[in-house]
Amino acid sequence: MRHTISVLVENKFGVLARVAGMFSGRGFNIDTLNVAPTQDPTASRMTIVTQGDDATLEQIVKQLNKLPEVIEVRDFRTGEYVDRELALVKVAVNSKTRSEVMQITDIFRAKIVDVQPKSLTIEVTGTEDKVNKFIELMRAFGLLDLTRTGRVALPRA
Amino acid sequence: MRHTISVLVENKFGVLARVAGMFSGRGFNIDTLNVAPTQDPTASRMTIVTQGDDATLEQIVKQLNKLPEVIEVRDFRTGEYVDRELALVKVAVNSKTRSEVMQITDIFRAKIVDVQPKSLTIEVTGTEDKVNKFIELMRAFGLLDLTRTGRVALPRA
Repeated sequence: MRHTISVLVENKFGVLARVAGMFSGRGFNIDTLNVAPTQDPTASRMTIVTQGDDATLEQIVKQLNKLPEVIEVRDFRTGEYVDRELALVKVAVNSKTRSEVMQITDIFRAKIVDVQPKSLTIEVTGTEDKVNKFIELMRAFGLLDLTRTGRVALPRA
Repeated sequence: MRHTISVLVENKFGVLARVAGMFSGRGFNIDTLNVAPTQDPTASRMTIVTQGDDATLEQIVKQLNKLPEVIEVRDFRTGEYVDRELALVKVAVNSKTRSEVMQITDIFRAKIVDVQPKSLTIEVTGTEDKVNKFIELMRAFGLLDLTRTGRVALPRA
């Protein structure tokens, strides 16, 4: 089972190394992770997607709460949160395939952010499933390059 | 000076802890970082935004290349790449301010992804400057919650 965890941490030197070290030291898996500043300059927020059963998740939350730099841990349950990710996808195109790639981009409400003679770079956002589906469709044209942010999430309530 | 570094790594257990540990161990700063899978299931891509002069950047690239799990390091120079980030922003609204928040959301081509009686959750994507500007404008209405992915980047050429 995949879990999404959001961790508010003090914006201190080495805190990412501490959190990543806790995960690898205890054998917890990380699918995606991101960390960036918040509206409060003294805090950063990390979003971690991890796999494991409920007991593993409980252990992760417990261990995170033990770290002195951790301010708050949110463990999101299905349906209670909104989640999104962003990907930049560079796709090979030629005069015949360009319009088809543009059509699919429109359908996904994605945006072309760079045009080169033989490629388009496209920004796509959505749930992980939507981003996966877009990448899958682009594979047929020739996937030249790809970078994804991993998931971010906020509680609905 | 801020630098954007993209690192392709083997999708092995503990590689994030290794990279984060190298940064903190050597005193290199991390502004934002994200890591997620690529089109190749054996590799993940990390994007790191760091601060420092050119000599520091050179040191970082050199140390990254020494790590056995690192496949490729790209050090992006101004103008040569496209970069984007995504933020989810929860803003306080009431019957008077809702339409104003919706107008600003339209101008930024952002999307409302959740509606509650007293709040809107908005997905905004763009360069870091654009995302910062949107957050700054939302602050006047009441910023309830915020999560950002940090930057991802692809070379133009």
